[in-house]
Amino acid sequence: MSVTAPAGFRAAGVTAGLKPSGRPDLALVVNDGPEHVGAAVFTQNRVAAAPVLWSRTAVGDGVVRAVVLNSGGANACTGPEGFADTHRTAEHVGEVLDVSAADVLVCSTGLIGERLDMPALLGGVDTAATALSPSGGRAAAEAIMTTDTVTKQAAVTRSSQTGSWTVGGMAKGAGMLAPALATMLVVVTTDAVVEAADADAALRAAARVTFERVDSDGCLSTNDTVVLLASGASGVRADREELSDALTVVCGDLARQLVADAEGAAHDIAVTVSGATTEDAALAVARAVTRSNLVKTAIYGNDPNWGRILASAGTVPAEVAPFEPDAVDVAINGVTVCRGGGVGEDRTRVDLVSAREVRIDIDLHAGEAAVTVWTNDLTHDYVHENSAYST
Amino acid sequence: MSVTAPAGFRAAGVTAGLKPSGRPDLALVVNDGPEHVGAAVFTQNRVAAAPVLWSRTAVGDGVVRAVVLNSGGANACTGPEGFADTHRTAEHVGEVLDVSAADVLVCSTGLIGERLDMPALLGGVDTAATALSPSGGRAAAEAIMTTDTVTKQAAVTRSSQTGSWTVGGMAKGAGMLAPALATMLVVVTTDAVVEAADADAALRAAARVTFERVDSDGCLSTNDTVVLLASGASGVRADREELSDALTVVCGDLARQLVADAEGAAHDIAVTVSGATTEDAALAVARAVTRSNLVKTAIYGNDPNWGRILASAGTVPAEVAPFEPDAVDVAINGVTVCRGGGVGEDRTRVDLVSAREVRIDIDLHAGEAAVTVWTNDLTHDYVHENSAYST
Repeated sequence: MSVTAPAGFRAAGVTAGLKPSGRPDLALVVNDGPEHVGAAVFTQNRVAAAPVLWSRTAVGDGVVRAVVLNSGGANACTGPEGFADTHRTAEHVGEVLDVSAADVLVCSTGLIGERLDMPALLGGVDTAATALSPSGGRAAAEAIMTTDTVTKQAAVTRSSQTGSWTVGGMAKGAGMLAPALATMLVVVTTDAVVEAADADAALRAAARVTFERVDSDGCLSTNDTVVLLASGASGVRADREELSDALTVVCGDLARQLVADAEGAAHDIAVTVSGATTEDAALAVARAVTRSNLVKTAIYGNDPNWGRILASAGTVPAEVAPFEPDAVDVAINGVTVCRGGGVGEDRTRVDLVSAREVRIDIDLHAGEAAVTVWTNDLTHDYVHENSAYST
Repeated sequence: MSVTAPAGFRAAGVTAGLKPSGRPDLALVVNDGPEHVGAAVFTQNRVAAAPVLWSRTAVGDGVVRAVVLNSGGANACTGPEGFADTHRTAEHVGEVLDVSAADVLVCSTGLIGERLDMPALLGGVDTAATALSPSGGRAAAEAIMTTDTVTKQAAVTRSSQTGSWTVGGMAKGAGMLAPALATMLVVVTTDAVVEAADADAALRAAARVTFERVDSDGCLSTNDTVVLLASGASGVRADREELSDALTVVCGDLARQLVADAEGAAHDIAVTVSGATTEDAALAVARAVTRSNLVKTAIYGNDPNWGRILASAGTVPAEVAPFEPDAVDVAINGVTVCRGGGVGEDRTRVDLVSAREVRIDIDLHAGEAAVTVWTNDLTHDYVHENSAYST
C-alpha cells in the first residue's frame, strides 16, 4: 500500500509543529532510483499557491528526486515572501538529501493568506530525512491529513512475462471535497521503467477520469497537486497505455476514498449520464447536476426529487449537450422516477436511507456516450465546518 | 404601488384551494387598455414548464390582455397533459374576460412534477374575475407568494411636459433565491404609450441589469417569468430609453426586495467587481464569487475570508476575464483585507455582525468595467428548507 509499495522509494511523516494540534504535519517522499522520472498535474486556479508555482517549474524537465508536503498552511496568497519560503524549503530538502533543489517538488495545504512557520518547517525536514524508510508510506499518508478522518492509500501490481511492477499512492483532501482546508494532494509512485513523456501523458489521462470526476462543491483549490514519481527499480518496462491503466486503478481508488471521507457529507452520490452525443456533453450534464445545491440538499433530506435533477440538466445549453428534455429518463437507486421528462415509477419506492451511496442515472437518449461524476450531499455539517473554520 | 399603480389595470388575488395552507394562491392582472402591449422574458432552462411554453408563444405578437398566475404548483415536467392544463387555463380566462386565449399569459409556481388541481384553479379564475379592482395590486402580490415572508411591490412615476406616466410591479421568489419553490415571477405594468418593439427591448435591458444580477444559489428555475404590460392609459408616450430607465428602477427595487427576503439567508451580499476589461469579464468574476459555497458559508460564519474570494475569482479562465492575480484588491465592508493578491489591512477590523448587508469589492486593476451582483449567504436554514421541502 501507499507510496512505498513500489521498490525504490522511502518516505517519512513527522510532526514539524505547523499544526496547533501537534499532529503529524510534514511528509517526505524520496525516489532512490535508479531512474528519477517525475510528472505532475496542478490546479487550474489562476490564484495558484507558491508551492504550485514552484513545482510547476521544477517538474518541467521530467526529473524529480523528492516531494516534500506540509499540512498546517497552504502558503497561498502570500506574495513574493511566500514564494521565497517555498524556494527555501526546496533548497533545504536538496541539501539534506544531496540532490538539486530544482528536482524537489513542494506541496502545501491549510489556511490561505498566512506565512508558514519556516523554522518549524525546516526542522521538520531534518527530522523527516532521518526517519525515511521503505515502510514509511503510512506515516507520510498520515502527515498530509487535514480534516481527513482516515488516511487514503492504494496500490496495484501488474505482472508480465518480463516481471512485475507496482503503482502505489496516497491522497488527502480533496480540494473539491474538503474545501475548508482547500486542497487535494496526491503522490503516486511506481517502480516501472517509463519514459518521462509517457509518465506525463499517462498521469494526465488517469487524472482526467478519476480526480477530475469527483466534485463535491464545485470549488477549485489554489493548491491541488497530483505528482507521479517513477524509479525504474523493478527493471520492467511499462508503456504509456499499461501505465495509464494501472494509474487509473490507483487514482480511481484514491478518488473514491476521498468521496467517502468528504467533510460533513451524509451521502456519496454517483451521477451517471448516459445516452449523450459526446463524452463532453455527458460531462457537462453530470457537472450541472453534481453542482446543484438543490439536488444535493434533496439527497441530504432523503428526497428523490427528480424535478430538481431534470431542471439542473436543463441549465446546460443545447449547443453543449444536445438532447430533448421530453426524452430524458432519471433513475434514483434503480427506480426510474422520471420517464420521458415526466412522472415515472412511484418515487416512494426509492430507498435513500439504507446506504450512504446513492446512484443517479440520467439517460439523455441522444447518443452513446456516458460519464460518471461523484459528489456528496449538502448537509448541515458542511455549512457548520465551512462557516466555523477560520474564525 | 404594485401592478395597479398605473392607470388601465385591474387585479385580484384569491384563494383557489391549490395550497394546502388555504392561503391566497391565484392572481389575475388585466390590462383594460386602450392599448394592450405585452412583452416577456423567460427562464433559459431547457426544461421549461408548460406555462412558460404557452406564454412564450402567446406573447409573440406583442399583444397581452391578461396574466393569470398561480402558486401551489409549478406545472413543470408534467408532459402533454400539463400543457393541456395550461391551455385550458388560458381558454377559461379568455372566456371569463371575453378576450382571446392567445392574449392570456399563464405563470405557475410550486412543486415540479405534479399536475395542478384544475377544478380548483378554474374556480379560482371565476372568483378572481369578480374580484378584479383598480386597487387589487396588493391582493395579487399576496396570492403569488410561496415561501416569501412579505409581498414585493414597487412603483415609480415619471413626468414630462406632456404629462406623467407610471410603472408598477410585483414579484415573488426568486428562482435563484428561494429555489425550494423554484420560481421567480414578476409582473410589471405601465400606463405609458409604448411600441411593442420598445417594450420588448426595454424589458430585456432592464432585466439584464436587475433580475439577472441576483443569484442566490446558481440554480435556474423551470418557470421564471418576467412580464410587462402597457395600457397606454396615461396618453403620454415613452421612448425605449425612458421606458428602460423607469423599468430598471422598478425591477431593481423588486430584485433587491427578493434578495432581502431570500429563504434561509442571514446576509445579503453585494459583490462588486471593478477594474475589469469588459462588463462580461466583470460579470464572470462576480458570478464565480457569488456561486462559491465556500464564500457563502464564510460570510454566514461572519468570517472575512478573502482567500476564498480570491480563489473563486481565480477559477475564471484568463480568456474570459484577463487580470493579474497579484494585482487584485479585495475589500469587505470597506476594509481592504487583500491588497495586490496578498495580505492587506487587518481582517479583524471587518464588521460582519452589525448589518445584514455585506459589501465585497473586488478591484481587478485590469480595465474600467464594473458590475454588481447580489447574492445571499449559505446557512443552516437554507439546507433545512431545501432538504425538508418535498418529503
